[in-house]
Amino acid sequence: MSLQNPPVNSLSLEFLTDICISVEKLEMDKTCRGLIITSSLPKVFSAGLDIMEMYGKSPERCGEFWRAVQEMWLKLYGSNMVTIAAINGSSPAGGCLMSMTCDYRIMADNPRYSIGLNETQLGIVAPFWFKDTMTNTVGHRTTELSLQLGQMYNPAEALKIGLVDQLVPEDQVSHYSHTNHDQVTTPDRSKSMMRKPTIDKLTSKREADIQNFVSFITKDSIQKSIGMYLEMLKKRKR
Amino acid sequence: MSLQNPPVNSLSLEFLTDICISVEKLEMDKTCRGLIITSSLPKVFSAGLDIMEMYGKSPERCGEFWRAVQEMWLKLYGSNMVTIAAINGSSPAGGCLMSMTCDYRIMADNPRYSIGLNETQLGIVAPFWFKDTMTNTVGHRTTELSLQLGQMYNPAEALKIGLVDQLVPEDQVSHYSHTNHDQVTTPDRSKSMMRKPTIDKLTSKREADIQNFVSFITKDSIQKSIGMYLEMLKKRKR
Amino acid sequence: MSLQNPPVNSLSLEFLTDICISVEKLEMDKTCRGLIITSSLPKVFSAGLDIMEMYGKSPERCGEFWRAVQEMWLKLYGSNMVTIAAINGSSPAGGCLMSMTCDYRIMADNPRYSIGLNETQLGIVAPFWFKDTMTNTVGHRTTELSLQLGQMYNPAEALKIGLVDQLVPEDQVSHYSHTNHDQVTTPDRSKSMMRKPTIDKLTSKREADIQNFVSFITKDSIQKSIGMYLEMLKKRKR
Repeated sequence: MSLQNPPVNSLSLEFLTDICISVEKLEMDKTCRGLIITSSLPKVFSAGLDIMEMYGKSPERCGEFWRAVQEMWLKLYGSNMVTIAAINGSSPAGGCLMSMTCDYRIMADNPRYSIGLNETQLGIVAPFWFKDTMTNTVGHRTTELSLQLGQMYNPAEALKIGLVDQLVPEDQVSHYSHTNHDQVTTPDRSKSMMRKPTIDKLTSKREADIQNFVSFITKDSIQKSIGMYLEMLKKRKR
Repeated sequence: MSLQNPPVNSLSLEFLTDICISVEKLEMDKTCRGLIITSSLPKVFSAGLDIMEMYGKSPERCGEFWRAVQEMWLKLYGSNMVTIAAINGSSPAGGCLMSMTCDYRIMADNPRYSIGLNETQLGIVAPFWFKDTMTNTVGHRTTELSLQLGQMYNPAEALKIGLVDQLVPEDQVSHYSHTNHDQVTTPDRSKSMMRKPTIDKLTSKREADIQNFVSFITKDSIQKSIGMYLEMLKKRKR
Repeated sequence: MSLQNPPVNSLSLEFLTDICISVEKLEMDKTCRGLIITSSLPKVFSAGLDIMEMYGKSPERCGEFWRAVQEMWLKLYGSNMVTIAAINGSSPAGGCLMSMTCDYRIMADNPRYSIGLNETQLGIVAPFWFKDTMTNTVGHRTTELSLQLGQMYNPAEALKIGLVDQLVPEDQVSHYSHTNHDQVTTPDRSKSMMRKPTIDKLTSKREADIQNFVSFITKDSIQKSIGMYLEMLKKRKR
């Protein structure tokens, strides 16, 4: 699955829906041995959630968007396939979350790329299931520090804390992903055993989590900060 | 306690029962200051559960066997003694589990030896309490990857991920085990505080866990694969 | 907040009460951007709980003391401020606990200093919330081993296991603490999300935890060992 939503693979409602449909199809295809997620775009794996989905939208639409974010996570973190993230570019916020749902993470060893849950930098608190996914990946302490600072890691740092599993030269990310994938020959239930409690937690709190998101994101103060942030981005481009 | 069940210290029903009785006796002996578990056989600590106990046996017998495996784990992981694993040989599957029940693991620094929960390689899923014991030892992420791949680690790798605590020259495993043991002078309740939730979980789900094992292992398809595996072993020996 | 209770910043009932009042004031002061905890005394951050509060006191007084220890932990671990421990001296037992409540730990790189939960060495079992705080900081396995041995770590060892986050030259602990503090510009709710389950656990078991402490510490055998320990300290001083 090669992500292609120019310019930066932002996760819009439409793109998330496409991803979910693709994953579901592969999941049901018995000839499919697994899934490698990568990006078709240069320099970026995914820039994360599409900020335009959170600006000036109705509460209903915001809720629909958040449900799609949850669905993407539920499908990927709970996948029965062997999943590998071939991280061939930067991967902040939702891009990092998507990487962490995979069984194994291979990142291009380019110091210009970075990865991390940097929501805090934007004045947003990562939801509990983002936090749980990161805790399962790098442990309690690193997650606490990382979320508090909204820290982004370069590839070497990400490898050191265990946020990615392997660094390879940029032009060999795809090669190594396939090699690694081929090593896992059998489907395995230990993955679902490890992840079930984390998945069950969101499943049981799903509606409340949507309510939380909608009431937060539709606040006047938050809409105003997003507006200012978008203005700043526009100016930077000029 | 020096394991001696040639040729490879397989954990049969009889051998497990012997181990449990020995541990129970030591536990009640107030002059006993602790327990060092090692192997009397060359090159192997324990090859794990005896596959012959899972082949062509009645459901009743399979259930009895599994109860003994649980009992061994409950007795060792919940021991009030200071326990040290002196791992002087390879230690796959159930052998690795037994090592992980101890308070401290010293392994012979011989790159030919390996240790790990490699059940997946045999088409078996490690039960939840194997998984919990490993998570308590090396953390969530390493356990997930390790179980999915059924990975075996050489001594250096095992030290790096924290699956063992210390590597020593092969002829000094016993010496270092005693030295380390002598450093712990007082019995301590912090161990039981750390392990209680994990132990309580199996205690409360014990019968269901036996049912799971019996219904899985007595399946025709599983019996057939075990049969083929045994054939292969026979051929290899010739 | 600079701890000053000579000679070694022992946490007496009175000193704990002072600390709690100071923290509460800062918490309500909206101009306060955060809290750096350090020691005004040479060579010691805090020697931990004042042993004189546990010797020859009435059960009521012991209960009052323990409630103050809990309150200090609840206030600091649950603080809405950005908190940094500037550990400019040794920090055993309760001193280590206080450090671990902070968001970030900077320690003087002086090999004579040490830090750790060494209660076991004194024949005391660390209560569950000491254990939980350490598990959140350094993980399950390191906590288990550390509590069982009552291990103290020099700065290099403490950095390696993640008990402290940064080592700096002794005369620059204060400088680096302020520099680090300034990097965290926004208050953040991810901290309370990470710590809430641990805090809720003590809150819900607070009275039982006090009862446990009082009935343990007022035992004749424990009072006798404390008496002998104090005699030994006196002789050492002469």
